[in-house]
Amino acid sequence: MLDCGEGAQIQLLKYRVPFSSLHRIFISHMHGDHCLGLPGLLSTMALQKLTFPMHIYGPKGIADFVDYIVRTFCTEEELRFHVHEIDHKAAPMVVFEDKSITVEAIPLKHRMPTVGYLFREKSLLKALDRSSADFYGVPVYWFNRIKSGADFITEDGIVIPNSRLTHPSRKPYSYAYISDTAYSPSIVPHIRGVDLLYHEATFEKSLKERAAKTFHSTTEDAGKIAAAAEVGHLLIGHYSARYSRSIDMERLRSEAAEHHPRTIAANEGMFLDLKELRNQLQ
Amino acid sequence: MLDCGEGAQIQLLKYRVPFSSLHRIFISHMHGDHCLGLPGLLSTMALQKLTFPMHIYGPKGIADFVDYIVRTFCTEEELRFHVHEIDHKAAPMVVFEDKSITVEAIPLKHRMPTVGYLFREKSLLKALDRSSADFYGVPVYWFNRIKSGADFITEDGIVIPNSRLTHPSRKPYSYAYISDTAYSPSIVPHIRGVDLLYHEATFEKSLKERAAKTFHSTTEDAGKIAAAAEVGHLLIGHYSARYSRSIDMERLRSEAAEHHPRTIAANEGMFLDLKELRNQLQ
Repeated sequence: MLDCGEGAQIQLLKYRVPFSSLHRIFISHMHGDHCLGLPGLLSTMALQKLTFPMHIYGPKGIADFVDYIVRTFCTEEELRFHVHEIDHKAAPMVVFEDKSITVEAIPLKHRMPTVGYLFREKSLLKALDRSSADFYGVPVYWFNRIKSGADFITEDGIVIPNSRLTHPSRKPYSYAYISDTAYSPSIVPHIRGVDLLYHEATFEKSLKERAAKTFHSTTEDAGKIAAAAEVGHLLIGHYSARYSRSIDMERLRSEAAEHHPRTIAANEGMFLDLKELRNQLQ
Repeated sequence: MLDCGEGAQIQLLKYRVPFSSLHRIFISHMHGDHCLGLPGLLSTMALQKLTFPMHIYGPKGIADFVDYIVRTFCTEEELRFHVHEIDHKAAPMVVFEDKSITVEAIPLKHRMPTVGYLFREKSLLKALDRSSADFYGVPVYWFNRIKSGADFITEDGIVIPNSRLTHPSRKPYSYAYISDTAYSPSIVPHIRGVDLLYHEATFEKSLKERAAKTFHSTTEDAGKIAAAAEVGHLLIGHYSARYSRSIDMERLRSEAAEHHPRTIAANEGMFLDLKELRNQLQ
């Protein structure tokens, strides 16, 4: 879960996402609209005696907050919450990694320590072309090396290029979550080429000064970052409360789309599939 | 506002209750489902720079909680929050009073310090029967005394009973809010005759043991308390999550109504008018 605003546990119930499917929560910063769902969610999890460990990541302040929640609202339960406080000055840095994914924190420019998160699938093993491997007499103990991308070298020293022995694997998926930030082109190298970039767009482009003053972005800022980073799709959100009608959303979307045509305006309950988004590019 | 569960600020927007109409919040106890809307509501109020003073009442823990909220989520704003921490052991006690109303905290039996609240309009002035006052030659400086209930004494020492000079005022309205509690007949004298009693009814009557174990009430408990206190109407709520369908609510309502026929089952967004409820009794 990325950020956890007030009412998150209620939304999870509404959209039928079981609590047990949540194992890690990544918080971008400690403003109320990004973390005030944690007390309710964590205390309900504690009440329901969920037995798996739960990891919570965030910049300075997150450890104190979770500690307060646990002391104040989870006093009757046994807990398995693990907090990972991120030094935003040390970002970009990998904050979580397993065999299939890495999660990197990216420094953002806001009114307090704030990080974005970048999710990258690790390189996928290639599929072995079994008939080709048999043809070249590749022994079984070579298979894993070849799936990882190695060329095959015969006993006679002949090199069989990897591309003759494997089917190409799909490119790993990637997603960048850039929450509250002023316009910040320094993030572009970190998010280059991701399939989907979520970037906040609190204000329409004409409210540039208000955006700068509050360390937020405009639709134009989000569109420019997405274009410069050559991302697959741009997803905008975090609209100011002044925009509430669907006609407003479409206006915000089209302003960002002037810079990056493949722009989607996020709304409550939206579901996106990275595979479908990538297929749309072809 | 009575208690402030997660998402309270979102519900206020949904039901178009302006934040500026809220001046006092009364919290019954520090379980998450009764107070986790405070951080969001107070920090939004701070952001919107509401200029009126805001008073928050509650038992042990409330001062620490509001202090944490202000330090953590309202750091950029000037604040006018006043916290009144109630010693639940000293209850029943008046916690707020102005010229038209008193608010009393009532001790409840729960797993932590918990209070209910009783709202009583003060006695209303009677309406002067002007033609009768003129007939008896009542001077103007007597009018306020007579509206307060005094008899008139003429210069000749003749007593004119108050009832000849006034129209009777309506009985003041009263409302009791009994949140989480085990069955507790000791509250009956405090809430006797109120127009409306909200009483929690977490469980159906057959789950009596579960209710006792968790310090909650059953429908039967709520109905018995309402009947013993001879209240106008009983409003039940705080249903266990196992009851979600309207057929469940009707079953809970009818269980309580076996003891107190004028029972209403609360549901989200319900609006009740004390005047209409009282008219139904006639």
